[in-house]
Amino acid sequence: LTSKLPSSGTTIFSVMSALAAEHRSVNLGQGFPDYPMNQELIAKVNEAMYNGFNQYAPMQGYLPLREVLAQKIKFLYGTDINPDSQITITPGGTYGIYTSLTTVLQPGDEVIIFEPAYDSYVPNVLVNGAVPVLIDLQFPEYKINWEEVRAKITPRTRMIMINTPHNPTGSVLSENDITELRKTVEGTNIFILSDEVYEHLIYDNIPHQSILRYPDLVERSFVSFSFGKLYHCTGWKLGYCISSPELMKEFRKVHQYNCFSCHSPSQVALSEFLQNKDSYLRLSGFMQAKRDLFHSLMAGTRFTAMPSYGSYFQCYQYHRISEESDHAFAVRLTKEFGVTPVPVSAFYQNGKDHKVIRFCFAKKDETLEKAAELLMKV
Amino acid sequence: LTSKLPSSGTTIFSVMSALAAEHRSVNLGQGFPDYPMNQELIAKVNEAMYNGFNQYAPMQGYLPLREVLAQKIKFLYGTDINPDSQITITPGGTYGIYTSLTTVLQPGDEVIIFEPAYDSYVPNVLVNGAVPVLIDLQFPEYKINWEEVRAKITPRTRMIMINTPHNPTGSVLSENDITELRKTVEGTNIFILSDEVYEHLIYDNIPHQSILRYPDLVERSFVSFSFGKLYHCTGWKLGYCISSPELMKEFRKVHQYNCFSCHSPSQVALSEFLQNKDSYLRLSGFMQAKRDLFHSLMAGTRFTAMPSYGSYFQCYQYHRISEESDHAFAVRLTKEFGVTPVPVSAFYQNGKDHKVIRFCFAKKDETLEKAAELLMKV
Ligand SMILES: CSCCC(=O)C(=O)O
Ligand SMILES: CSCCC(=O)C(=O)O
Repeated sequence: LTSKLPSSGTTIFSVMSALAAEHRSVNLGQGFPDYPMNQELIAKVNEAMYNGFNQYAPMQGYLPLREVLAQKIKFLYGTDINPDSQITITPGGTYGIYTSLTTVLQPGDEVIIFEPAYDSYVPNVLVNGAVPVLIDLQFPEYKINWEEVRAKITPRTRMIMINTPHNPTGSVLSENDITELRKTVEGTNIFILSDEVYEHLIYDNIPHQSILRYPDLVERSFVSFSFGKLYHCTGWKLGYCISSPELMKEFRKVHQYNCFSCHSPSQVALSEFLQNKDSYLRLSGFMQAKRDLFHSLMAGTRFTAMPSYGSYFQCYQYHRISEESDHAFAVRLTKEFGVTPVPVSAFYQNGKDHKVIRFCFAKKDETLEKAAELLMKV
Repeated sequence: LTSKLPSSGTTIFSVMSALAAEHRSVNLGQGFPDYPMNQELIAKVNEAMYNGFNQYAPMQGYLPLREVLAQKIKFLYGTDINPDSQITITPGGTYGIYTSLTTVLQPGDEVIIFEPAYDSYVPNVLVNGAVPVLIDLQFPEYKINWEEVRAKITPRTRMIMINTPHNPTGSVLSENDITELRKTVEGTNIFILSDEVYEHLIYDNIPHQSILRYPDLVERSFVSFSFGKLYHCTGWKLGYCISSPELMKEFRKVHQYNCFSCHSPSQVALSEFLQNKDSYLRLSGFMQAKRDLFHSLMAGTRFTAMPSYGSYFQCYQYHRISEESDHAFAVRLTKEFGVTPVPVSAFYQNGKDHKVIRFCFAKKDETLEKAAELLMKV
């Protein structure tokens, strides 16, 4: 067998979670909450199962769920999205990204990816025989240099991937970034893939620059969302993807022969649960309180918080004495100090090491307190 | 956008189900049960959710579930399968097939597919830039002509796809077929992809010729299974894939960046539910009774049952007066007679039309009675 992904190992999230479990450390690595999710939503799934919603959902998703999502989008971003032709329910945000790339990419196509990057992007491009064109976000603000982007565009450029709020850094795109993005793609056939799984995790009243605000950009975009991030149930593996009717038609051709359809009882439950706007409007405040708590707890440590505006991750710089790598440092934090981060070097293909580690703060207050207490000793 | 699948429309299953819904016909088209699933299994999922199993399962699947699957395999087929390195939980059988093909195929590779074929096989090959090599099963027994297979092997042949019990025809592979398969692949680098989602739906005490019985073949195989078919919950979209440790390592590289992991609460529930062997051993008897009922009800119609030994589908030949196609006939059965089948011509890339339609008999007895009563008028 010729490996399709010869240089891929096991994803860093699995590696760090396994290490955390082995050493019984406080796991602030892989991004998932450790507090209970909403019990009412659980009850609704249970009800849907008892009511017999256990057979195939439609391939594009349960219609009432797509309808309430269209309402949510209209309410938040003012844009009309057609639930029939522009929304497909996916088994998670990662799958939405994979399927979008597979829909579009032909061998040899180039895809612009900003690093640090969520670790599925590059393999998703490679598995399609396409070529990742990597551009560093400017350290330490992790902002896009649009001049550099334009300089890297070639006739083979097929797609630009953006991610706001950004994992792992928590940087967010501004209105000016959208203007620059538009300037970059206007008059070209370049598609946009926007990873917006942290849509509601944006703080200090900064508006989320969703592609969905801009109908002219939706025409050439795939936008991937996650219910797992929204409702604290990452293990349910459910999300949705939005695009133009024309692109969505092609997306569904790939999707219908990849997974075909998604977990039906959850879709029925979510179609009801989403009617209540508070279910998503309160998330930012809830998580901002966690971020603020974590910041204040970490203030007593020797780690330096980096700028961060969204997501449920916070990156820290640390002052290294030895030649130890980010990865080795993350392992040592787990083994010697009992707290597991993710090394940000893992989000660079070349392992670029800025002495930065990422912590997930979507945790119980006592988990964050315990972690900070342990990190105080570093 | 250059379509990756220019000649794919909407899958026939969605088309026929939508048509059935529109005309309120008895839907014997798309394969799913219309009776309630096991309530104890539902209760276990609910319990898992309340117990907090709502975050990411491990990428390869919840370990206790993989362990009980290894026990089931040992019990049924006598083969030792390592739960750590040879089993991955997937969001359904279709996804297992897609991901296996994507793991192996390079552009230009050839894949042998027998027709009629489940409608995802060919698009899955095409989306990977590979070439489907189509071989007809011999009408009307739908058996494989192994001489013809060997004649079609070239240096580019990468994979042979088999499916037993077979959808849509209900034919099953015999021990002799396995001998012929072995003879065909021995000394080559050809992989096998075995779709065994109807594993337990095989009747009259015929043994299921699972690839898992043959450790020498497992070495070069991916085998895809479905909990949806097993436990009457097609909408849960959960299954598993088995392979050799070496191939599974590559499968997981693709899987971890496609869907990453699967619905956690169901995995916890299934790991308990599968402990009870009756939960799968009783399925064949249950479904054979439905098949027998449907056969006897249909005996009064002008449809002629074709040979069938497994799956929950039964094909019928009909005597056509006009030049009407299988597809048009299936539509007319829906509109004029109130029963929806799937035209078997849809399982051929070239639409080969043998005047055969497929009915799904995984339905309540009264549904089958109602359908037969309506079909009596044809
Ligand atoms: C799919 S596991 C990764 C979860 C996550 O988004 C992260 O930790 O970055
Ligand atoms: C994925 S929908 C198709 C269900 C099925 O297996 C069939 O009807 O053949």
